[in-house]
Amino acid sequence: MEYRIEKDTMGEVKVPADKLWGAQTERSRNNFKIGPAASMPLEIIYGFAYLKKAAAYTNAALGVLPNEKRDFIAQVCEEILEGKHDDQFPLVIWQTGSGTQSNMNVNEVVANRAHQLAGKTIGEGEKTLQPNDDVNKSQSSNDTFPTGMHIAAYKKVVEVTIPGVKKLRDTLYKKSQDFKEVVKIGRTHFMDATPLTLGQEFGGYVSQLDHGLKALENTLPHLAELALGGTAVGTGLNTPAGYAEKVAEFIAEFTGLPFTSAENKFEALAAHDALVETHGALKQLAVSLNKIGNDIRMLASGPRSGIGEIIIPANEPGSSIMPGKVNPTQCEALTMVCAQVVGNDVAATVGGLQGQFELNVFKPVMAANLLQSAQLIGDACLSFEEHCAAGIEPNQERIDELLKNSLMLVTALNTKIGYYKAAEIANTAHKNGTTLKEEAVNLGYTTAEEFDAWVKPEDMVGELK
Amino acid sequence: MEYRIEKDTMGEVKVPADKLWGAQTERSRNNFKIGPAASMPLEIIYGFAYLKKAAAYTNAALGVLPNEKRDFIAQVCEEILEGKHDDQFPLVIWQTGSGTQSNMNVNEVVANRAHQLAGKTIGEGEKTLQPNDDVNKSQSSNDTFPTGMHIAAYKKVVEVTIPGVKKLRDTLYKKSQDFKEVVKIGRTHFMDATPLTLGQEFGGYVSQLDHGLKALENTLPHLAELALGGTAVGTGLNTPAGYAEKVAEFIAEFTGLPFTSAENKFEALAAHDALVETHGALKQLAVSLNKIGNDIRMLASGPRSGIGEIIIPANEPGSSIMPGKVNPTQCEALTMVCAQVVGNDVAATVGGLQGQFELNVFKPVMAANLLQSAQLIGDACLSFEEHCAAGIEPNQERIDELLKNSLMLVTALNTKIGYYKAAEIANTAHKNGTTLKEEAVNLGYTTAEEFDAWVKPEDMVGELK
Amino acid sequence: MEYRIEKDTMGEVKVPADKLWGAQTERSRNNFKIGPAASMPLEIIYGFAYLKKAAAYTNAALGVLPNEKRDFIAQVCEEILEGKHDDQFPLVIWQTGSGTQSNMNVNEVVANRAHQLAGKTIGEGEKTLQPNDDVNKSQSSNDTFPTGMHIAAYKKVVEVTIPGVKKLRDTLYKKSQDFKEVVKIGRTHFMDATPLTLGQEFGGYVSQLDHGLKALENTLPHLAELALGGTAVGTGLNTPAGYAEKVAEFIAEFTGLPFTSAENKFEALAAHDALVETHGALKQLAVSLNKIGNDIRMLASGPRSGIGEIIIPANEPGSSIMPGKVNPTQCEALTMVCAQVVGNDVAATVGGLQGQFELNVFKPVMAANLLQSAQLIGDACLSFEEHCAAGIEPNQERIDELLKNSLMLVTALNTKIGYYKAAEIANTAHKNGTTLKEEAVNLGYTTAEEFDAWVKPEDMVGELK
Amino acid sequence: MEYRIEKDTMGEVKVPADKLWGAQTERSRNNFKIGPAASMPLEIIYGFAYLKKAAAYTNAALGVLPNEKRDFIAQVCEEILEGKHDDQFPLVIWQTGSGTQSNMNVNEVVANRAHQLAGKTIGEGEKTLQPNDDVNKSQSSNDTFPTGMHIAAYKKVVEVTIPGVKKLRDTLYKKSQDFKEVVKIGRTHFMDATPLTLGQEFGGYVSQLDHGLKALENTLPHLAELALGGTAVGTGLNTPAGYAEKVAEFIAEFTGLPFTSAENKFEALAAHDALVETHGALKQLAVSLNKIGNDIRMLASGPRSGIGEIIIPANEPGSSIMPGKVNPTQCEALTMVCAQVVGNDVAATVGGLQGQFELNVFKPVMAANLLQSAQLIGDACLSFEEHCAAGIEPNQERIDELLKNSLMLVTALNTKIGYYKAAEIANTAHKNGTTLKEEAVNLGYTTAEEFDAWVKPEDMVGELK
Repeated sequence: MEYRIEKDTMGEVKVPADKLWGAQTERSRNNFKIGPAASMPLEIIYGFAYLKKAAAYTNAALGVLPNEKRDFIAQVCEEILEGKHDDQFPLVIWQTGSGTQSNMNVNEVVANRAHQLAGKTIGEGEKTLQPNDDVNKSQSSNDTFPTGMHIAAYKKVVEVTIPGVKKLRDTLYKKSQDFKEVVKIGRTHFMDATPLTLGQEFGGYVSQLDHGLKALENTLPHLAELALGGTAVGTGLNTPAGYAEKVAEFIAEFTGLPFTSAENKFEALAAHDALVETHGALKQLAVSLNKIGNDIRMLASGPRSGIGEIIIPANEPGSSIMPGKVNPTQCEALTMVCAQVVGNDVAATVGGLQGQFELNVFKPVMAANLLQSAQLIGDACLSFEEHCAAGIEPNQERIDELLKNSLMLVTALNTKIGYYKAAEIANTAHKNGTTLKEEAVNLGYTTAEEFDAWVKPEDMVGELK
Repeated sequence: MEYRIEKDTMGEVKVPADKLWGAQTERSRNNFKIGPAASMPLEIIYGFAYLKKAAAYTNAALGVLPNEKRDFIAQVCEEILEGKHDDQFPLVIWQTGSGTQSNMNVNEVVANRAHQLAGKTIGEGEKTLQPNDDVNKSQSSNDTFPTGMHIAAYKKVVEVTIPGVKKLRDTLYKKSQDFKEVVKIGRTHFMDATPLTLGQEFGGYVSQLDHGLKALENTLPHLAELALGGTAVGTGLNTPAGYAEKVAEFIAEFTGLPFTSAENKFEALAAHDALVETHGALKQLAVSLNKIGNDIRMLASGPRSGIGEIIIPANEPGSSIMPGKVNPTQCEALTMVCAQVVGNDVAATVGGLQGQFELNVFKPVMAANLLQSAQLIGDACLSFEEHCAAGIEPNQERIDELLKNSLMLVTALNTKIGYYKAAEIANTAHKNGTTLKEEAVNLGYTTAEEFDAWVKPEDMVGELK
Repeated sequence: MEYRIEKDTMGEVKVPADKLWGAQTERSRNNFKIGPAASMPLEIIYGFAYLKKAAAYTNAALGVLPNEKRDFIAQVCEEILEGKHDDQFPLVIWQTGSGTQSNMNVNEVVANRAHQLAGKTIGEGEKTLQPNDDVNKSQSSNDTFPTGMHIAAYKKVVEVTIPGVKKLRDTLYKKSQDFKEVVKIGRTHFMDATPLTLGQEFGGYVSQLDHGLKALENTLPHLAELALGGTAVGTGLNTPAGYAEKVAEFIAEFTGLPFTSAENKFEALAAHDALVETHGALKQLAVSLNKIGNDIRMLASGPRSGIGEIIIPANEPGSSIMPGKVNPTQCEALTMVCAQVVGNDVAATVGGLQGQFELNVFKPVMAANLLQSAQLIGDACLSFEEHCAAGIEPNQERIDELLKNSLMLVTALNTKIGYYKAAEIANTAHKNGTTLKEEAVNLGYTTAEEFDAWVKPEDMVGELK
Repeated sequence: MEYRIEKDTMGEVKVPADKLWGAQTERSRNNFKIGPAASMPLEIIYGFAYLKKAAAYTNAALGVLPNEKRDFIAQVCEEILEGKHDDQFPLVIWQTGSGTQSNMNVNEVVANRAHQLAGKTIGEGEKTLQPNDDVNKSQSSNDTFPTGMHIAAYKKVVEVTIPGVKKLRDTLYKKSQDFKEVVKIGRTHFMDATPLTLGQEFGGYVSQLDHGLKALENTLPHLAELALGGTAVGTGLNTPAGYAEKVAEFIAEFTGLPFTSAENKFEALAAHDALVETHGALKQLAVSLNKIGNDIRMLASGPRSGIGEIIIPANEPGSSIMPGKVNPTQCEALTMVCAQVVGNDVAATVGGLQGQFELNVFKPVMAANLLQSAQLIGDACLSFEEHCAAGIEPNQERIDELLKNSLMLVTALNTKIGYYKAAEIANTAHKNGTTLKEEAVNLGYTTAEEFDAWVKPEDMVGELK
């Protein structure tokens, strides 16, 4: 492989000739061979691209950066956001806990690429941009990395998680309406109970997701707070007056999202409770989705020895020999995602617990877990919606059979013939394996007509909405 | 021990003669010998007392319960809330996951105690109240237990957690004001960094708690939703019209808290995402408090071989031989509480993951963990506030010594003599173990007067608020 | 309340006159009002009783403590172990993280009680024993508390957890033998699959517990290592030669358990990986038990709309109106315990993560979580064994019905009539809601006799052990 | 893009023409767009390659597969193990929870590649191998996936984790020997305490890792148990006699690792407690490593305002302006890995909790978390060893300064001048900010010579090993 020589304050480093990064990136690559390469999420790099461009605009507006440099920085940042340089960010999550090396990676790539855009050859001629003095101007790793991760996290939540969950929620809502009059047996303690409608059951899922979305949205204002302007320790040393607010405005403008300057920069550097907060809401959604996925898996179980009250789409061959064996594969993928999110929540929490003094140095691991959880929930909801939820149909025959046989319907007779006679009917039917109606008539407590008139499951499910 | 005979649908049970509970409680006591007795939190029992009274009022108002019975129920519930019957609730958390047996425990105690209040002897004469038909009227374990746990949790959060955290927050805020001009060395990566004030450092803690309180308050509306009126499966079977809304109004009135009837009763029985949501916010507070407790522990470390920038109160003999060894015991208690809360969050989450169909049967474990976390955070904040935070003082001498010696102050010379000369000064001072000023003068880059004029830590800490 | 005055190096403290504890205990009581009083597990106090007695014997044997003092100490320790002083240990888990205050609580109680045993009045006359100089001789909180918690944890594991799990394991094993020939439908993905025996299903549970017990036993050697002899920082300062080994021998003798002196005292004070290790095995058991509890809950579901292949004992009234509604309450208690243990594992882990330098100061929280988990698993297994597992019976009729109707049995025809014809039979039966036999005959692929000869579920379950 | 048509029992699917996979893989690719593509760990694919080859050899040996087919299968498996087909496995973790689709992916790739090796064109001519009938012969997804994941996990643990931890352990051991006589101040509660040697401190770390390695090795026998031979539900349906044992022998032979046939195949399919067990040990190592990384971070803190007792290598520019600011970046990477592993442990646990009946369907998520944890710990230990631990040196000057000033050394005078005078010396020195020696002489309790003779830190550190 061909190399060129790059330098930093520690000396010279050989860098692959075709790469835009510089000495500090290369050092990090060599010093942190932990897990697969380039594990630092690209979303964070894109967050950096937004903030570097915004910083350049702010610095220029406040008179500390020439417009020409601003434009070079902005141009490269836009290229990064277009995905043109995805292979220029080889670093891993498991680097310095401030993410300094990824900040430098971006600084170096911006500077070197600008040099190319200026028509020059990397390493030759006067530098078009200095990575530290220009690209990183009025910034520190300590405020850029948390800014980058907040941008990435916020975008992921509003662009992937929320739309994914909402799509699923809407489909479940539609199902709850479609199944409004499908009266079925209820189950508590996994045991037969009084009836409800399948629509009501699905309505419970909708309510879970509605509450979860609300909880997630509640966390967004904290996540919208950006550390930028705090620089090294939160005091804003080396930033021009008005910088913090202005740079947040530019970021809001460039992203189209309501980012604000963090009220307290010390908190914004030293603690990442905002990530803990948002991840907590993602975990709540995982809890809800696990319940939903599990219920649907069990409701669809069978074809003959399970519950079988609903039919889910057959998306792939279950067993070649076993027709009707439609494995609930989307439920499985969904609930595996939930397990991961619950684990990620602990990883983010453990990172959050351990900030010290002016800096939390678990930034990359916290951000990476949040981004993964947010992505997986969004994706899994879409997948589950498209390949499972949208196609769910009641197995009316099975539902009716189970409902008809249910002993729990006897509850409806309490007010007609009294509790003790009703219980006797149920007891006898249970012992004999017969139906309530048979025994009600046999015991002489109701006529067949009375039974039919009085025991109407559809009257036991309350008001239908 | 003397016994009396109580009966339920399974037959007779011997119950200690001096106890108010009945057959079902006694069965549960015998069938669930798991962990210490009476572990079911009393707060949940009190939650039941509120709801039983409210149900009685609602039933009476809607014409399905005589006022006389209402008043008996109400009277016993008030006695329970006064703590007069705390020893009548012997059941454990580890019972049926719907909490049915604790619901019956309350029903039985109310009925038997009402019998006493009616001037009769338990087990003799016509029952004053039927545990099921009267005390439990228009209710099911499946909607009462979640209602009781929401009442208990909400009260605990607003009466213990929030006031405790606020007290600590206010003291830390006061300290941040008191320490506003105490300029000290900053630390990032646990390494010396540019200065900030001790007030700013404490201001970061305040901001953490402010955000945490906001997050916790965001969860209260979900927690305020009560399941009551859903009865067995959420359909409200066997409740009179208007019951759910009215009973929530009574509970709100009796508790003075803004409880509402759950929008979706199916969600309220089958999922306990509200507990997961609130516990998530408690966990976030634990994350914040762990950071704060850790920082204070480290800032107070010494007396001679640590950081020693602050002095914390000496509350107990540290080491008899070692004066000045003031162990940060409150920090330790606080951070242990944080560890517990992080663990409890997982316990609540694991319970929340596993609801099935119309019922989540991890209610007691979820509620118990939330109540413990809410109590511990509130108590630990009060303890930490009173015995530690309120008495924190800066160790001004130590702070000044560390600040004066810091090499990081060289940053201030960048704009005066240029980056490279500044770096040379710092490098030389580091190598020689000397001060920046000595080397600045030695190297001929500044005069002593210039150095003093230019290197002013107090100018490096930004705007003080 | 009456008080007496006790003193320590910080001055005088008022102590309730009827209590044996002294000044430092009282200070801790006042300074740490966090959660319910006396939450420090008594098992740890008992661990202290063993070690204080052993230390006294060792000190006497090594010539640094008079035999008379040894005997006083031993006598009080025995009283403590007999449970005579349980109300003398009022401190909470949430105290100093070294447990120093509980160590002093024990020292003070031993000294004051010895004074009584010597026929004197507490606070009067020359002290019979000095809490620090005599009772705590050759010890430090830093090595006694970890020793006490290891003794407590080891005993709990071998006396409660392992016997409880083994009892359940043996009952499940017996069931696996009893159910050896009960051929039933298998389920994978919660969908019908090829048959196995109920005995095989239960045999899987046995294997889980066998592996779990092995894993738990693997952790015992680390847990058997005692810190005693390390004193303040692990160097053994102020202990006589040979002390560490000898005191471990005495503890082994007094407890009848194979305790040893920790190979490395620095590890034993600064890290509590042994608790993390043992708790990890408890968590593994919780994972296994959750699976078992869940399976049994689902196998017993019904009575008519569930799976219903087994019948579990009815221990309490399920629903008064609904005969046959036997709620799986023991499964619920067991799986709630599992949720708690999984959470406790995280609490212990978070404590374990945060040792610093020569001391981990999360000792009480780690120990308390381990003790709770060990107790709950042991108790829950016994409860589940007695009230559920021992009474499980197959619902033969239901098992046969499901098996007979299963489409999966078609697999047996593959080798007789070829895959495609077999699949056609299954497909047709699925579509028509008929049996395999009907369609096999209808399609002319087998005679009724051939079908019966070839499709024998009992031949599809492998070798029975 | 060009496509070819592949078929399965559900019909035709378009597959990219240049890919070896078939219809079922393609369906899964389309149905599970969750997270980045190809997230299923390649290590599991390689595990499949071992087991498919072993199954072919076993089938051939037992007479149910022609040798020619065996050799085709083996040849492709070897190519896979050589990494020649890494881009042929595009599926994600978040698929069916049995991993069926990855099993089919391997079956399809083996069959199609064999067709090429036979000189034919995919999709044309008679199939050289049938994916199901030949490649998957005597197998089911339900036993192959757990076998593949056990092989992958075992290899990762013994080839990456253990060597990495051992390397670090050995370096720390060497340091503990090198630093054997470096007497330094101890710290408990983060407060100054009696002295120990730096070697002893590092010896504690070694002991942690020794115990952790032992714990990890204890889990290997369970992990070595292979499910293969259980087929669909554990009964071994459709396997020839002797298959399970023989196939495990072949796998042991091909991998050179002591794999065995699982004692109980039902456990091996329905529960993945072995993964929970091994991950528990990885988590314990994470706990240990977090403590070590934290200690080293803090011991190296400074350069002037921290503890500064050790010097760690400067691997990258810390701050360009701040010489001596060597950020503990390797400690940060290491402790971030620990946070991840603690989170992954919960993810694996949550998966393990939820097995149902004959199958646990959280296989991919459990395996992926274990593989990541095992890799990260191994890699992070190597990185930390090479770039940090190996270069650690004591900062002798700083160590001596802190030790000399320590008030804790007064303990040594107890036995010479009595406790009270010793305490008075320490108290006075603390108040005056002087040294013990000054005050001892001033107070007339010792001469300077006596002080020097009696107060020797090197005599306070116990026996050095």
